[in-house]
Amino acid sequence: MDARLLMDESPRERMVAAAIQGMRGSGLAGAGINQVIAASGAPKGSLYHYFPGGKNQLAQEALERFGEERRAALAKLAQSAADPPARLRRLFGGLAKALEKEDFTYGCAVAGVALDLQEDSAPLAAVCAAQMDLWVEALEPAFAPLSAPRRLAWARLVIATFEGALVQARALRSAQPVLEAGELLAGAVRLEIETH
Amino acid sequence: MDARLLMDESPRERMVAAAIQGMRGSGLAGAGINQVIAASGAPKGSLYHYFPGGKNQLAQEALERFGEERRAALAKLAQSAADPPARLRRLFGGLAKALEKEDFTYGCAVAGVALDLQEDSAPLAAVCAAQMDLWVEALEPAFAPLSAPRRLAWARLVIATFEGALVQARALRSAQPVLEAGELLAGAVRLEIETH
Repeated sequence: MDARLLMDESPRERMVAAAIQGMRGSGLAGAGINQVIAASGAPKGSLYHYFPGGKNQLAQEALERFGEERRAALAKLAQSAADPPARLRRLFGGLAKALEKEDFTYGCAVAGVALDLQEDSAPLAAVCAAQMDLWVEALEPAFAPLSAPRRLAWARLVIATFEGALVQARALRSAQPVLEAGELLAGAVRLEIETH
Repeated sequence: MDARLLMDESPRERMVAAAIQGMRGSGLAGAGINQVIAASGAPKGSLYHYFPGGKNQLAQEALERFGEERRAALAKLAQSAADPPARLRRLFGGLAKALEKEDFTYGCAVAGVALDLQEDSAPLAAVCAAQMDLWVEALEPAFAPLSAPRRLAWARLVIATFEGALVQARALRSAQPVLEAGELLAGAVRLEIETH
């Protein structure tokens, strides 16, 4: 999505969209004031008009917007008519497709920011943590035949592996690690369901 | 490690150490010229003297140095007198301890950079990929009773989960996701060994 194409959106909306895309591409450095202004087409000097809390307020809104989209997708996946292994293949298959479509240039805004935190951006850690907790919660029902503690453990593990496989894929410029991770986890969860 | 304490090292060595620590803390932004000069105590303007290739040359050397340390640790773990589940618990337990010791402020230089890549730093993707491949290769023997393709699949998966659990831990400022990930993977690999 090129934020500059969203000219029917308000400047404020375009700035949030530009910050999300910047963080997906290069973490906090991608959501710097100059980059957001340039990508959103918002007037220079308007950041503090729309976001009185400055860069961190913009970053927080962008993380929450990005997080909510992913949470909704995970909740939908968890409710889909499929067994847990099929759901995992679908999750990692979807990530692989998205990575290829965007030429391995974009990833996860939350992970990008979590690994970029410095003193001035430290309050964003809690924002990242809250989003990842919501993802775990949304994904947990996907492991339905397992007990509640196992569902939760698997959901947290899958979110971790999803983020790490994304790192591998961006570096390798190949979706293969993502597909392999989905396949291995699908087999492992199938084995646990069969043997418990 | 505070690079400024390493005054017995050459300025060049101190710059590499400072770049590693910066990337571990905040990705590429942490390895900017000003930050490396300040943290290393190297003379202003000396970056291009020591690194004619500029920022990317420094970043490449730092990634390779960081990567080699981790590779050696993984190779040692893979050869240790323990079974695969115990090795996994040791790997993730070690990460948990390191995170706590550094107050969740530092992580993996390679992941931090891989999620920060922009056009000018794009060549570093291959450097990150090469290091992660070496880690997978070093870790593969850790899954010894399994077949070669399964050892490789598990090694790649574990590196992915390691990186993603680190993201979760830094955001949550808690080592719990790391310990849980190690425990779940240890159980899953044990189940695969028992049933195959």
